[in-house]
Amino acid sequence: MTQAEGPPKGAADIAAQSTALNRYRAVRQATEALTRALTPEDQQAQSMPDASPAKWHLAHTTWFFETFLLEPRLAGYKVFDPRFAYLFNSYYEALGPRQPRPQRGLLTRPSVDDVLAYRAHVDAAMARLLADGAEGFEALLDLGLAHEQQHQELILMDVLHLFSCSPLNPAYAPPRSAGPAAPPPALRFHRFEGGLVEIGHAGDGFAFDNEGPRHKVWLEPYALADRLVTNGEWLAFMEDGGYARPELWLAEGWARAREEDWRAPLYWREGEGGWSVMSLRGLRPLDPAQPVSHVSFYEADAYATWAGARLPTEAEWEHAVAGKPIAGAFLPSGRLEAAPAVGGEGLRQMFGDLWEWTRSAYGPYPGFRPAAGAVGEYNGKFMAGQFVLRGGACVTPGGHVRASYRNFFYPQQRWMFSGVRLARDAA
Amino acid sequence: MTQAEGPPKGAADIAAQSTALNRYRAVRQATEALTRALTPEDQQAQSMPDASPAKWHLAHTTWFFETFLLEPRLAGYKVFDPRFAYLFNSYYEALGPRQPRPQRGLLTRPSVDDVLAYRAHVDAAMARLLADGAEGFEALLDLGLAHEQQHQELILMDVLHLFSCSPLNPAYAPPRSAGPAAPPPALRFHRFEGGLVEIGHAGDGFAFDNEGPRHKVWLEPYALADRLVTNGEWLAFMEDGGYARPELWLAEGWARAREEDWRAPLYWREGEGGWSVMSLRGLRPLDPAQPVSHVSFYEADAYATWAGARLPTEAEWEHAVAGKPIAGAFLPSGRLEAAPAVGGEGLRQMFGDLWEWTRSAYGPYPGFRPAAGAVGEYNGKFMAGQFVLRGGACVTPGGHVRASYRNFFYPQQRWMFSGVRLARDAA
Amino acid sequence: MTQAEGPPKGAADIAAQSTALNRYRAVRQATEALTRALTPEDQQAQSMPDASPAKWHLAHTTWFFETFLLEPRLAGYKVFDPRFAYLFNSYYEALGPRQPRPQRGLLTRPSVDDVLAYRAHVDAAMARLLADGAEGFEALLDLGLAHEQQHQELILMDVLHLFSCSPLNPAYAPPRSAGPAAPPPALRFHRFEGGLVEIGHAGDGFAFDNEGPRHKVWLEPYALADRLVTNGEWLAFMEDGGYARPELWLAEGWARAREEDWRAPLYWREGEGGWSVMSLRGLRPLDPAQPVSHVSFYEADAYATWAGARLPTEAEWEHAVAGKPIAGAFLPSGRLEAAPAVGGEGLRQMFGDLWEWTRSAYGPYPGFRPAAGAVGEYNGKFMAGQFVLRGGACVTPGGHVRASYRNFFYPQQRWMFSGVRLARDAA
Amino acid sequence: MTQAEGPPKGAADIAAQSTALNRYRAVRQATEALTRALTPEDQQAQSMPDASPAKWHLAHTTWFFETFLLEPRLAGYKVFDPRFAYLFNSYYEALGPRQPRPQRGLLTRPSVDDVLAYRAHVDAAMARLLADGAEGFEALLDLGLAHEQQHQELILMDVLHLFSCSPLNPAYAPPRSAGPAAPPPALRFHRFEGGLVEIGHAGDGFAFDNEGPRHKVWLEPYALADRLVTNGEWLAFMEDGGYARPELWLAEGWARAREEDWRAPLYWREGEGGWSVMSLRGLRPLDPAQPVSHVSFYEADAYATWAGARLPTEAEWEHAVAGKPIAGAFLPSGRLEAAPAVGGEGLRQMFGDLWEWTRSAYGPYPGFRPAAGAVGEYNGKFMAGQFVLRGGACVTPGGHVRASYRNFFYPQQRWMFSGVRLARDAA
Ligand SMILES: [Fe+3]
Ligand SMILES: [Fe+3]
Ligand SMILES: [Fe+3]
Ligand SMILES: [Fe+3]
Repeated sequence: MTQAEGPPKGAADIAAQSTALNRYRAVRQATEALTRALTPEDQQAQSMPDASPAKWHLAHTTWFFETFLLEPRLAGYKVFDPRFAYLFNSYYEALGPRQPRPQRGLLTRPSVDDVLAYRAHVDAAMARLLADGAEGFEALLDLGLAHEQQHQELILMDVLHLFSCSPLNPAYAPPRSAGPAAPPPALRFHRFEGGLVEIGHAGDGFAFDNEGPRHKVWLEPYALADRLVTNGEWLAFMEDGGYARPELWLAEGWARAREEDWRAPLYWREGEGGWSVMSLRGLRPLDPAQPVSHVSFYEADAYATWAGARLPTEAEWEHAVAGKPIAGAFLPSGRLEAAPAVGGEGLRQMFGDLWEWTRSAYGPYPGFRPAAGAVGEYNGKFMAGQFVLRGGACVTPGGHVRASYRNFFYPQQRWMFSGVRLARDAA
Repeated sequence: MTQAEGPPKGAADIAAQSTALNRYRAVRQATEALTRALTPEDQQAQSMPDASPAKWHLAHTTWFFETFLLEPRLAGYKVFDPRFAYLFNSYYEALGPRQPRPQRGLLTRPSVDDVLAYRAHVDAAMARLLADGAEGFEALLDLGLAHEQQHQELILMDVLHLFSCSPLNPAYAPPRSAGPAAPPPALRFHRFEGGLVEIGHAGDGFAFDNEGPRHKVWLEPYALADRLVTNGEWLAFMEDGGYARPELWLAEGWARAREEDWRAPLYWREGEGGWSVMSLRGLRPLDPAQPVSHVSFYEADAYATWAGARLPTEAEWEHAVAGKPIAGAFLPSGRLEAAPAVGGEGLRQMFGDLWEWTRSAYGPYPGFRPAAGAVGEYNGKFMAGQFVLRGGACVTPGGHVRASYRNFFYPQQRWMFSGVRLARDAA
Repeated sequence: MTQAEGPPKGAADIAAQSTALNRYRAVRQATEALTRALTPEDQQAQSMPDASPAKWHLAHTTWFFETFLLEPRLAGYKVFDPRFAYLFNSYYEALGPRQPRPQRGLLTRPSVDDVLAYRAHVDAAMARLLADGAEGFEALLDLGLAHEQQHQELILMDVLHLFSCSPLNPAYAPPRSAGPAAPPPALRFHRFEGGLVEIGHAGDGFAFDNEGPRHKVWLEPYALADRLVTNGEWLAFMEDGGYARPELWLAEGWARAREEDWRAPLYWREGEGGWSVMSLRGLRPLDPAQPVSHVSFYEADAYATWAGARLPTEAEWEHAVAGKPIAGAFLPSGRLEAAPAVGGEGLRQMFGDLWEWTRSAYGPYPGFRPAAGAVGEYNGKFMAGQFVLRGGACVTPGGHVRASYRNFFYPQQRWMFSGVRLARDAA
Repeated sequence: MTQAEGPPKGAADIAAQSTALNRYRAVRQATEALTRALTPEDQQAQSMPDASPAKWHLAHTTWFFETFLLEPRLAGYKVFDPRFAYLFNSYYEALGPRQPRPQRGLLTRPSVDDVLAYRAHVDAAMARLLADGAEGFEALLDLGLAHEQQHQELILMDVLHLFSCSPLNPAYAPPRSAGPAAPPPALRFHRFEGGLVEIGHAGDGFAFDNEGPRHKVWLEPYALADRLVTNGEWLAFMEDGGYARPELWLAEGWARAREEDWRAPLYWREGEGGWSVMSLRGLRPLDPAQPVSHVSFYEADAYATWAGARLPTEAEWEHAVAGKPIAGAFLPSGRLEAAPAVGGEGLRQMFGDLWEWTRSAYGPYPGFRPAAGAVGEYNGKFMAGQFVLRGGACVTPGGHVRASYRNFFYPQQRWMFSGVRLARDAA
């Protein structure tokens, strides 16, 4: 049976690249590196409507550059295949009709090889376009690169979900040889005074439109846990009836938990020898020291209630990391899973390891206005019904996140690399 | 065919009542007055899972007093029928299992007469309990009364929905004889400076737990429209392709609009002679001057986008009415529908007429903590996925709302008396 | 709480009536007698799409006479309310659009009283039409009467289903005082030689179109059980894992049984004291001697397989009763439930007690051709996907069935008064 | 883009093979020949729950030989991978749990290459088992071969369905160069006297259990059309409102047609230049002379009603071909689509071209008893709810069908190569 032979190379940190073309190439090659361990069959299947085939990700990100950069800006550019606009448009209404999302897995043509040829075609044209840099469209190039990085993470999320549906429990990468981790340090809370603070992106670097405008927010005194909730702590929640006590849950969360018979995080499996966890490195015994991952907002909120705490708001989270370096276990670490917290002072695991659920509904910041045209559909139209997550994860490409970065998912979704950091009122 | 003979008497304003018992009686009688125009058959049917039979409302509100006041506080109280705890518990997990919500319409027993006997039994016991006032449980009594008033409004919402499902278009109340209204005054925006303001309930009077704690919020300068959006303005939106242009819509709203084939507000009907509107007074020609009602959050948001505006936040809304009298067309007006705006200066229709959608997701205020016990399930467990509406409507009992009052519904729901007030950034 | 005080009078046997008008009146009055024990609320509710409100049955049968007899044949007849054609047409495509079936329970208007007025209006007109007999339209009158009798049975089926949905277990009629029945006689098989036989209706009396033409069928030698399967025998099937052994079931039956978690016949309820059965006489302890009822075709087939037998074909069933009197426990018996088999020789319970599932798919007999016009939709268009049941039940009006009578239901349906008679090859 | 270069070789007629091993090899190689034109991606996707990935078919048929022949009969046989019993069991309850049918497309592992290795492993073992013939298990071997042939046809059905879901309209095989066919001969009916006839399999050769026992049936005089209904005739039906006239349809068929918005056969596509048809040879202009294919039972029945005819019963069909040679356009013809009828006398197209819907519900013949053990689940448990089709199609392997062969599908299914032959009463 096909098996990945070695660990996939983490997507390179693109910040170090000197030219626009080099940055472009670094991102593009990182994507292809991620799919190298996958067979054509692996890249074809779509395990649920929320997920997409890896092949589709490869093509869609390519279409993005073709559509938003090459067609409007590269004189004489010839579209690879005009039918791809229908196949690989994700959700841009302004760009016409498209393959229904739940049926992306039915597109057996073009093949993986055809898609790689498409990538090569677009890469060659991008090399011409970027030969003299990206002056005048730096922001759009950055958007395309950030977009492709988001899909790098999605490829890993979607592959894990796909493999979790197989009774064979395939591993995307070989297991790491490390023994069981040391128990994590006891959880402590760090107090913040709050007051009238500012959050949101400011400055010259690239950011998504939804990260701004920078604006004032009043914060009451609060405290944040200094590390993520662990599998061991989650087990205690479960053993205390966490999944069976409606008083801990939001009404919608409880209804969903019953409908889908939630009894543990998404990838936990109970066997004779206790709990295992399906991961990108295959099915492995549960490690109590590891941060709990693949939990929904509803579960995170129920856990926090059980723990006598709450989830942080996104403003609390962002204020807490203001001015801190963006260091943590991202994709370049090669871990492909969250690492147990190390000892020490101060907040740990704020960046990397796992996206952290906040209690903030994803909405527009004061003064937010989406960009004009199709690109304005990127973020703004999703500002209802979802919740914000912060900080990036072990599958997030290097250099991708910022303190102001707002990820967002529906409260019932679980296939992201999501974890839990507790918060408290500190008044 | 059965037909209501006269206008139902609006629910009395209970603020004027001098004693606890008088207040109790006023509210209880107001509920029964609302069902007097309904046949037993009308009171039996459940037109959708979100709605309940009028008979069920009559019983459930009674069960609330029995459960939260009589059982724990009236010595020797004998429960009317112990099986009713299963039938008429709405959603209190702490109080045990209950009739599944979508099947409330299958409870043909007890009959309407039996339910009225249940009400009389509980009312008699409440008279004993309240003989010397409500000292020590004033808050719980107020909660029970506010709860029953909410169900008064639900009765009218649910009856309208039920009648809207009948090809016979039954009228809950006879039509009013007034001719077409004068055109509404041109819409103007009023500017507010914002800054660091406070919202949330404070003071001695009753409020729901979700209205507090009172807390600071920073507001950028903003402007509010001085009246509600009208049917005539909505028609212009429709004629400009409002329901066919995805660029105006949130992604979820657009998906829902297509799934359910929305082409107009919920109760609009297109006929040979143009548009009519189903109302509590039957099917009537659309009045362009009347505020548009029964629109979802998604529609309200799309309209605002089309109009080059946005919806207000709940803090903006509340700050705008701070210190203003709570005057407007509520249920005691006897109108049963929203009235066209009158001319004049300043904000009109902030209270009464129609609930106003805000762009604020319904969540906990900083420091919010639900009450202990079953009563803590009243509001807190719904704080995900819904949006806040403000100000009350023409079917809201007199004296029920406050400036800090937070109503909440899902963004796709339309059977509430919901309308649209526009807002703008004023920087 | 409302409660029926005495046993409802069984629908009279109409064969004894001397004139067309008398026959008409007997049937119509029998229908109204059946609804007398029901409150308006009981008559309003629709417990599932397959069932209809009793009020709807009262009106629909009336509309049938109005549409097929009065409108075309009674000069000067004035339709009671032209809107009723939409409300009370069941499934006649040729007669235009109609209230969607699952939403019959939302028609709170007309009220029960209004429907009774409708019935009186049509009855008065029918009295004029039938003043001189029914010459020239005898067949259509018979069809209308047979139709109303079918709805009498449906009223009882639908009321039982509705009451089975109530946690209060309401009784349509008071319990009978009889003690537990004597054990039924041991089951024996009666052999039939078969050969080239004839089945199907022939002769002068009324029959539905689907009972003809009479035609030849070749039968191999076979045997029929001399009585129905009992509750006690069904318990043995259950205790032997009947609902948990896929090898006993048709594939579709097994899938359905798992989807809907079948563990016993539809109205069986397990409690601390053992099994009870919900019936028209309320919830009562299971009587092992009583024939098992309210089982689907799939369950009947699985039982037969378990018992080393099979279900009879409809031709085998009909050949077995050829020339026998149509005697059995029908509605006029007043039992409202199947009676235990008595001792004796020969086949018992062939008529009355319970409809008997056959293994025959419901299809057209050779040479069958439906009538022209709307009335041709009565039976023919349902000839796919259903299975034939034979013999009538304890809720079937007197004089309604014949040896050639073909009832038909979907193999997953269970709310009919259906039972099981075993058959075997006898070669 | 990948494209099939030449016509796939038709599956060989296995009857000519002299030894058991040769027969085995011929069938196995024919299966692999059919998948050679498919990419790994094509073989991975599952386009609907009714269809399976080609890769799954390759493995499942192999598992069948492994399970029913090698494991019980070949001493020392070592199972290729014990986990495959879960992955590739289709529906045999007696053999334990299995991958849910709708999720076969999620099994990206084993890969196509792994499955081919599995086939080679089993083929080598089968060569050992069959080295001295198949004495004592000839029937089981024949069942395995007939089973694999059924899956050959399913591969082609499922690939066509998959490709029909792609906006690119991929072709499984290149188009044939023939110009438009000559108009078909006028349709004539051939009369049969009927009487007491026999149908069902008899004799020494292999047949499925559902084809017996041979038994007597009485047939009234009838007539069969001498050829299949054509696309041109179907167009006339459509132009006469065939899909919009409920009076032509069975009630269930009409409901389904409205739910799924049927307006033409499954693979017809309307464009500016008129109708095209998606086929194994790609999207091609509709040929009026070609037999209409990919219609449901409901459509076939509605067409017959429109044409003043009916569908034949399976007994009529079988009696009509009694003693005739089994000659027709099967898979070895290499056509991959139905051919227009040629002129001549007598019935044409009875075998090959398209499966012919009968009006016979699929049920057990008198005296039918399924085999003991898992293999008894092959046919018997599906004997409810389906209809019989007869005669084989252009995608049916050579030598596979018999006069007594009973194919069966649900009345709403359309992805089989199904067509329509009309019948009439001839009395
Ligand atoms: Fe994208
Ligand atoms: Fe309530
Ligand atoms: Fe009827
Ligand atoms: Fe198979």
